[in-house]
Amino acid sequence: MEMMLAVSPYNQLALSGAGPVRDIKIFDTTLRDGEQAPGIALSPEDKVRIALALDDLGVDFIEAGFAASGKAERDVISKLSGMGLSARLCSLARAVRPDIDAAADAGVDYVHTFIATSELHMRYKLKMTPDEVVARAVDTVEYARERGLEVQFSCEDATRSDMGFMKRVVSEVQKAGASAINIPDTVGVIIPQAMGAVVKGIREAVSIPISVHCHNDMGLAVANTMAAIDAGATICHVCMNGIGERAGNASLEEVALNLFANYRVQTVDLGKIGATSKIVERVTGFALAGNKPIVGRNAFAHESGIHVHGVMSNTSTYEPFLPELVGVDRQIVIGKHSGAHSVRGRLDALGVRFPDDHMPELMEAVKDIAVGGKMIDDAELVAIVDNVLRKKETGSHSVALDELTVLTGKNTTSTATVSVVLADGSRSTVSEIGVGPVDAAINAIRKAINDEITMEEYKLSAITGKSDSICEVTVMLKNVGGDGALSVGKAVGLDIVETSVDATMAAINRDFARRRD
Amino acid sequence: MEMMLAVSPYNQLALSGAGPVRDIKIFDTTLRDGEQAPGIALSPEDKVRIALALDDLGVDFIEAGFAASGKAERDVISKLSGMGLSARLCSLARAVRPDIDAAADAGVDYVHTFIATSELHMRYKLKMTPDEVVARAVDTVEYARERGLEVQFSCEDATRSDMGFMKRVVSEVQKAGASAINIPDTVGVIIPQAMGAVVKGIREAVSIPISVHCHNDMGLAVANTMAAIDAGATICHVCMNGIGERAGNASLEEVALNLFANYRVQTVDLGKIGATSKIVERVTGFALAGNKPIVGRNAFAHESGIHVHGVMSNTSTYEPFLPELVGVDRQIVIGKHSGAHSVRGRLDALGVRFPDDHMPELMEAVKDIAVGGKMIDDAELVAIVDNVLRKKETGSHSVALDELTVLTGKNTTSTATVSVVLADGSRSTVSEIGVGPVDAAINAIRKAINDEITMEEYKLSAITGKSDSICEVTVMLKNVGGDGALSVGKAVGLDIVETSVDATMAAINRDFARRRD
Repeated sequence: MEMMLAVSPYNQLALSGAGPVRDIKIFDTTLRDGEQAPGIALSPEDKVRIALALDDLGVDFIEAGFAASGKAERDVISKLSGMGLSARLCSLARAVRPDIDAAADAGVDYVHTFIATSELHMRYKLKMTPDEVVARAVDTVEYARERGLEVQFSCEDATRSDMGFMKRVVSEVQKAGASAINIPDTVGVIIPQAMGAVVKGIREAVSIPISVHCHNDMGLAVANTMAAIDAGATICHVCMNGIGERAGNASLEEVALNLFANYRVQTVDLGKIGATSKIVERVTGFALAGNKPIVGRNAFAHESGIHVHGVMSNTSTYEPFLPELVGVDRQIVIGKHSGAHSVRGRLDALGVRFPDDHMPELMEAVKDIAVGGKMIDDAELVAIVDNVLRKKETGSHSVALDELTVLTGKNTTSTATVSVVLADGSRSTVSEIGVGPVDAAINAIRKAINDEITMEEYKLSAITGKSDSICEVTVMLKNVGGDGALSVGKAVGLDIVETSVDATMAAINRDFARRRD
Repeated sequence: MEMMLAVSPYNQLALSGAGPVRDIKIFDTTLRDGEQAPGIALSPEDKVRIALALDDLGVDFIEAGFAASGKAERDVISKLSGMGLSARLCSLARAVRPDIDAAADAGVDYVHTFIATSELHMRYKLKMTPDEVVARAVDTVEYARERGLEVQFSCEDATRSDMGFMKRVVSEVQKAGASAINIPDTVGVIIPQAMGAVVKGIREAVSIPISVHCHNDMGLAVANTMAAIDAGATICHVCMNGIGERAGNASLEEVALNLFANYRVQTVDLGKIGATSKIVERVTGFALAGNKPIVGRNAFAHESGIHVHGVMSNTSTYEPFLPELVGVDRQIVIGKHSGAHSVRGRLDALGVRFPDDHMPELMEAVKDIAVGGKMIDDAELVAIVDNVLRKKETGSHSVALDELTVLTGKNTTSTATVSVVLADGSRSTVSEIGVGPVDAAINAIRKAINDEITMEEYKLSAITGKSDSICEVTVMLKNVGGDGALSVGKAVGLDIVETSVDATMAAINRDFARRRD
C-alpha cells in the first residue's frame, strides 16, 4: 500500500506534534442529509440498495432517514433495521418526544437528535429561550434512554453558538445519558483553524466521544472535518459523493483518503469506493462533476502532453495515488491537448500499426475532431487512422442513399422505404418497419445494403429549445457478417430522422472504406 | 455588506494571531490549467469570450494559454494581448528558450515558467540532475528578462521537493530577475498545516512575492490556498468553477469568498461571480455539480421542511451569505421533502388561492409526483393544484387525438396530418409541414385545435442505447391567445414522434382543464 501513495513529506512534519489519530468511526448520512438535497428523492428500494452498498463498503453508522417525517420513511427504516446489516442503523430526530417515538417505533436502537444552540436559531427558528433549549435537550435524551435508544446529540449550528452555553448543554445531555456529542457546522461557515478550537472547547465539558458534521458552503468541509479529527473528534458525519443540503456534506471518499494518506487510518474498504460512488450516483440521479476528487471521471484522466508523458514514465508524477487503491480506472484521453505520445500509446494498446512519418497528419486530424472538447474513443481513433492512411476525400461514398421515405404516426407502424446505390452501381430498394421512424429508417438501410451490420450504439444528444432545435446523432455499427470491426458515424441536423440516417450512412461508408483495402 | 455574511465567531478568534492579509492578487488560469482538463477544448472565440468575462469580473492576471503548444494558441494569445484588457495577460512556458520565444512572440509581457524540483520529477520525467535543473531555471529566467518579459517562476511539484534544494533554486532565479515565485501543489497532496511551513520556508530564501497553485485531488485545494495566504503568499492561482487537470484547481469563487468572509479582503467584483461562472460553464461545456459551493444550482436551494421554514424566518439560519452577494438566486424547491410551508409560500407568490382543508391532498399529490427526485416547477405546481381541486380522472381528455400520420424522409418536406376531436365533439382535420417529423406533427396539432398556443420549450432527454431506446419528452406550451398561462406535458415512449405528440396533448389538455373553470 505504501507505494501507492504520493503524500507530501511536509505533511508528516506538520502532524508530528499532534495527538494520535486512530479508530475513527464513519457515520454515513447519505440516506438522510444526502437525500435532503433538492433533486434527490429515494424510494424504499433505492434506500435499501444504497444501504447495502454502504454496509458492504464498511461504514460504522448509517443514518437511514428521519423517521418522524412520515409512514413511508418509518417503514423503510424499519425494513433496514431488520436486515442484519453490520453498520449501526440510526434515525434523525428533532428534540421532541414524538420524534423519539417515531425512531424507536422504526426499530433502530441508535438515534441522532438535535436542537439548535445558536442565538440566531433559538430566536428566529425555535423561538425558545436558552433555558428552554437546555430543558428540552435533557428531556429528549432522557426520554430516548427510557425508550432504550443510544443517543448522539447535536448542537445544531454549533459553529455559531456561544461556547459557554454549548458547554452547559453538552454537559447536561451527557448527564442525561447521551453517548456522543456531534458538532455540526450547519451552514458551512467555519475555517479549519477555528474548528480545532471548538472541538477542544467541547472536549473540556464532556468525556464522551465527539463527532463532527461539516457542510461545504465555502469549500472547506473536508479540511474542517480533518481539523476536528486532529483536535480529538473520533466520529465523522459524511456522505458518499459529498451530497447533502446546499453545497453538500464532507465527502466520505475524500475524508477516508485523507485519513489513510496522512494518518494511516483505514476506515472503510477503500477498494470499494469507486463502485459505491457509482451506485449512489445512479440511484440518486445526482450527477458527479467531472472534476469531483477521487471518483470524478477526470480524477485519474490525463490528456495534456506533459501529463501523459509524465504518467507513462511514473504514475506518481501526476497522480496522488494509484486509482486501483479506490477501485477506479486510469484514463489516457485523446483530445485537443494530446501529444503524439498519447496517441501512439493508445494505438499500440489497440494493436494498430501506424507509420511514424504520417504521425503529424494523424495528430492534426485528431485535433480537428477534438474541437469543442470531444474525447476521442477507441473506435473513433481507429476510424481517424483509416481516414488518414487513405487520405479519403469526403463525398466519395461507397454507398449512396438515393431515396428515403418514412411513414409514421399514432397507431401506425412506422415504415421506411429506401433506395440505395451500392458501390458497384447496382440499386437496392426495400422497405422495413420499426418502433419509430428512426428505427424503421435505419432498419431499411441495413436491409438494403444486404450486409450483416448491427447497431451497437445510438446516441442522441439532449435537446432543449423548441421542436425545431438542432440535434446531434452518433451511431456505432458493427460488421458482424464480416470482420466484426466497429465503425462510427456522426451527423448534426434539424430533422431527427434525416440526421440519424446521415450518421448511419457515414458509419457504413467508413466501414466500406476500411474493408476496400 | 456586513449583514450579508454569517461567519463563525470562532474564525476571527483563530485568525487574531496571524499576520495581516491584504492586497491579494487573483491569478486566473481558467484558460490554461482549466482548459487542460480532459473534455475541454476551447476555440479562439471561446477564449476571447471567457477572457472578457474574467476581465470584467476583475481578476489581476489571466494565464491565457501555453503559447508554445501551437500556432492557433499563439494566435489567440496574441489577439487577447491586443485587446487592451485591464488584467495582465500571461502565457505558460516550460523552462526552455523556445517556449519563452513563443510567449514573447505572442505579445505578452508576463510569462509563467516552470521546471520540476522534486526528485521524482527530475529523475523520471526530466531525466536531469539537480544542478542541470538550477542552470536551466536560471538560463530561462535570464533569457526571458532579455526578451523583455516579467517572470513568475514555478518549482513544479514543490510540495514534494526538498526545501534546501528549492531554496537554492528560488534564490538563484530571484537573482536572475524573476519577480514572483509560485508554489504549485502539482498533485494535490499537501495538507493546510504543512502548506504554511512550505510558504514560510520559501519566504526565507527570497524577498519577491510568493504565489500558490493548488490542486483538489484530496478535496483540500481551497483550504491549502487559504493556508498559503495565511503564511504570506499574496498571489493565488485559481480557476473559475474549480476546473483544471484531474480534480481541478482551487476555485476562484470559493477563494474569493473565503477572503471576503474571513479577512474582509475584496478581490474580484463578487456580484459578477454568478454570471461569470455560467459563461465558463456554457463555453467550456464542463457541467457544474448540483452541489458545487457558491455557484451550483443547490448552493442556495432549499427543499426540506425544516430548512425552508428556517430560511423563511431568517435567511442566515441556513445560508452562509445572501445569494445576491455573488449574483445568484435563492430557490425554494418543491419536492419530496417539502413541507406545507414551502408549497403555501410558492402558491402565494404565484397568486394562486388554495383552500387550507385540501392541503393534505395537495401535499400527497406533490410527493407522488416528486418521486425519483423531480423538482416541481411553477407550471407543474399549478397543474397539480388544478388536478387536486377537480379530482380529475386520468383519461377524461378535453381534446382527443383520433388520427396522426407523418410522412418524412431524405429530401422530403416532413408533413403531418392529424384529426382531432374537440371538447364539443366537433372534429378538426388538418395537415401541416415542419423541419422534421416531430416539428410537423406538433405544428399540425396546434393548427387543429385552432388556438393560439406556442411551444415555449421542448426537451428531449439524451438517448444512449439502440435506435429503439426509450425517450422522454417534456414540452411547455403557452396559451398566447388566451391568458398567457404555461402548461407542461410529459411523456415517455419508444417512438420519438408519438412520444412528442403525447407530451403535447397532455400539455394541451392540462391547459383546457385549467381554463374550463
